[in-house]
Amino acid sequence: MPETLTLYTAKICPYAQRTELALEEAHADYTRYEIDLSNKPEWYAPRVNPASKVPAVAYGGPKTAPDQPSPESEKIAESLVLLEFIADLYPESNLLPKDPVLRAKARFFIDAFSTKVSPFYMGFVARGEPFDNLLKGFEALQSLLPPADKGPFALGSQFSIADAAVLPFIARLYVAMKNDIGGFAKGVGPASLKILQEDEKYKRFKAYVNTLFERESFKKTFHEDVIAETYKKRFGRPE
Amino acid sequence: MPETLTLYTAKICPYAQRTELALEEAHADYTRYEIDLSNKPEWYAPRVNPASKVPAVAYGGPKTAPDQPSPESEKIAESLVLLEFIADLYPESNLLPKDPVLRAKARFFIDAFSTKVSPFYMGFVARGEPFDNLLKGFEALQSLLPPADKGPFALGSQFSIADAAVLPFIARLYVAMKNDIGGFAKGVGPASLKILQEDEKYKRFKAYVNTLFERESFKKTFHEDVIAETYKKRFGRPE
Repeated sequence: MPETLTLYTAKICPYAQRTELALEEAHADYTRYEIDLSNKPEWYAPRVNPASKVPAVAYGGPKTAPDQPSPESEKIAESLVLLEFIADLYPESNLLPKDPVLRAKARFFIDAFSTKVSPFYMGFVARGEPFDNLLKGFEALQSLLPPADKGPFALGSQFSIADAAVLPFIARLYVAMKNDIGGFAKGVGPASLKILQEDEKYKRFKAYVNTLFERESFKKTFHEDVIAETYKKRFGRPE
Repeated sequence: MPETLTLYTAKICPYAQRTELALEEAHADYTRYEIDLSNKPEWYAPRVNPASKVPAVAYGGPKTAPDQPSPESEKIAESLVLLEFIADLYPESNLLPKDPVLRAKARFFIDAFSTKVSPFYMGFVARGEPFDNLLKGFEALQSLLPPADKGPFALGSQFSIADAAVLPFIARLYVAMKNDIGGFAKGVGPASLKILQEDEKYKRFKAYVNTLFERESFKKTFHEDVIAETYKKRFGRPE
């Protein structure tokens, strides 16, 4: 039986949403505490995460108010470490299946995202670097997806940490493209989205993404209005 | 009972040695196949690892000669994915303990290495960039080590994938420093080694490294002569 778990998170942050997705999928009993990343509380770095980033978890120890974390709880940071941690805490969630080969496939999918998509995300959204960099990454992910008749997720029929790892970034990218908010030239957002939605080449990837967007855990943890507003302030073109 | 496992590896490669260490620690029954990285066999990329890198594993399927991998075996790549895979295949090895918090600590240690040490390794060894970059990374690792009376390893008393992940890089760095082979100025190698060995500040880290160097799995999988010779050719100063 897992112990008390407090998640320090932020609606804007894709890394943090990874862990929220996993906790929701696991039907975990946890306390969500929003950290204002533009005005972090003084106690956060010294008492929760020295790197001063979200997500972080305080696990175990006595039950306390989230803004008064106990020194007796374990503090755990880094989103991918936390995805594995949540899968370990809730094995019945099947966030990672039991089969070692399937577990390796989930981790390899995450590795592909980390090396082939994630490094180009801010380049496109914040600095208007070519969308093609992201397209190549999505092709790589798509090539790792099982045939659609095996199930909609990265591992087939079962939602896993692989899906939780990629979804928050893809969803934020869609917000940027749909609303044409980004460091790219006017019109590039919708034009890029059109490629992903209409080019036959990305059909399997599109179906994958659409399935993930329908997931209850996603709807509960995705705050489109907050993201659109923040992205507009940070990356929007002057009118 | 794990199935047939073939490891495609190379003596020079630290990523590959990670997996050899884990397999040795698990007393796994596996076939080791050396890939000549300067002259890779034609069948390697199409039949084993499309990225054409080591390490890679062929797992399961019918027993075949390593240079005739079966299409029926699962092909798994990426050293950190493989460390987890080996830990999953051999749970009794305790390469990852059962406790979710300890498992998270092992993964966090690896993450610290991947973000704070590994990016600076070739900078120092190949291009003579400041040793200080590596020292800061080692300080970060050292701060994560338990007190020496809890045991010598990253998790305390038990060797884990955290140790297997960092050891091959540290060992190759020591070869470069000891033999003064690298893109740095003459004398910088031994001078840098002296800091790690004599400065009180790195005492805990030094003890950690020395314990790892004595490990049987390390002695069996570390080919100092091959590494020294290759590094001399690649990074050595002209006489």
